Amino acid sequence: MGAVKTKRMPRAVREQQMLDAAVQIFGQRGYMAASMDEIAEHAGVSKPLVYLYLNSKEDLFTACIRREAAALTAAVRAGVRPGLPADRQLWDGLRAFFAYTAEHPDGWSVLHLQARTHGEGFAAEVATMREEIVAFVTELIVVAAREAHRDPDLPRREVAGLAEALVGAAESLATWANASPGTTARQAAATLMNFAWAGLGDLMDGRPWTPPGGP
Amino acid sequence: MGAVKTKRMPRAVREQQMLDAAVQIFGQRGYMAASMDEIAEHAGVSKPLVYLYLNSKEDLFTACIRREAAALTAAVRAGVRPGLPADRQLWDGLRAFFAYTAEHPDGWSVLHLQARTHGEGFAAEVATMREEIVAFVTELIVVAAREAHRDPDLPRREVAGLAEALVGAAESLATWANASPGTTARQAAATLMNFAWAGLGDLMDGRPWTPPGGP
Repeated sequence: MGAVKTKRMPRAVREQQMLDAAVQIFGQRGYMAASMDEIAEHAGVSKPLVYLYLNSKEDLFTACIRREAAALTAAVRAGVRPGLPADRQLWDGLRAFFAYTAEHPDGWSVLHLQARTHGEGFAAEVATMREEIVAFVTELIVVAAREAHRDPDLPRREVAGLAEALVGAAESLATWANASPGTTARQAAATLMNFAWAGLGDLMDGRPWTPPGGP
Repeated sequence: MGAVKTKRMPRAVREQQMLDAAVQIFGQRGYMAASMDEIAEHAGVSKPLVYLYLNSKEDLFTACIRREAAALTAAVRAGVRPGLPADRQLWDGLRAFFAYTAEHPDGWSVLHLQARTHGEGFAAEVATMREEIVAFVTELIVVAAREAHRDPDLPRREVAGLAEALVGAAESLATWANASPGTTARQAAATLMNFAWAGLGDLMDGRPWTPPGGP
């Protein structure tokens, strides 16, 4: 093993330790109040090393957002097995989502609260992840609608709106669940299924809710 | 009419003109890019007068958030008539919400996007409004559950979660609808009713969605 390789390995490991510490401090203190001193101390490294590896507080925060966004998206995707019935896929996806946000409250705070509160650049990082999740949910609903057969031509706009509603509801519930002691990930997922599934299910069966005075 | 009174009246009117201009510029340019010069010009007043009345860019933005939050909350409350069936109340409330956000896209951008992206102080202003709306929706769901009789003891935690889900879905849909040309307020409200009502309705009738393997 050459000198370059032995140097590289510790750097990758140390960077992850720095990111672990940074997510925790950013998530708990908030972006503004978080200090590079505390992050370095928490990671067990010197502050100059944090700057050497991650450049600046802004770049460190961006790296945190990217890592947490990729991990959350991967967790949701891993939770869903294509081929199962649509409500089962949705249930599995929601459980994976709420389990991840419950187990990583600091990561969720970075993504949902901190990243959106401290400037348009950070907010844009999260918007990219959100678009990917909305696209994933849209596809799930389209497949479910085709499966249901009765309304295979559910308009694209309606499906896009439903996916936006579902993702917005999930984001809101995850933040609420993390702030509500004793609320489990499974309970949060069940609440959203109760809220959403019968509605989506009826819609796909061609039984939309009808406004007073007709559609 | 004394001198004091004639002076006061124009000030109140001028302040509203400044706020109108500021909401438009903040909503369209974003908080950082918005300039006090452009806001003053758009309001048809001098820049020193804006500073005299509203003190600073930060205070002007806070005043915008407060005015828009109060107007949105009032619009939703005014749209709902107590005493009607629960689904009608929800439909009326959602239509009022989406009509307001569609007619005031700059105000909605200030509340949902700008205020949450530029610091914890502004975000806290919006959080207060959001809590009021969640409380309003929670009450609506509690009343509906009592009306339905079959499940009068729907747990408080479940109701609170449902209200969070509904508000999160509505926020997400309003932002999406404003970015989707041709999507009307009525369509957005109907999408959310389709998503939510049958689910809520089934739940209140004591027919929750059942997870695989039982509850």
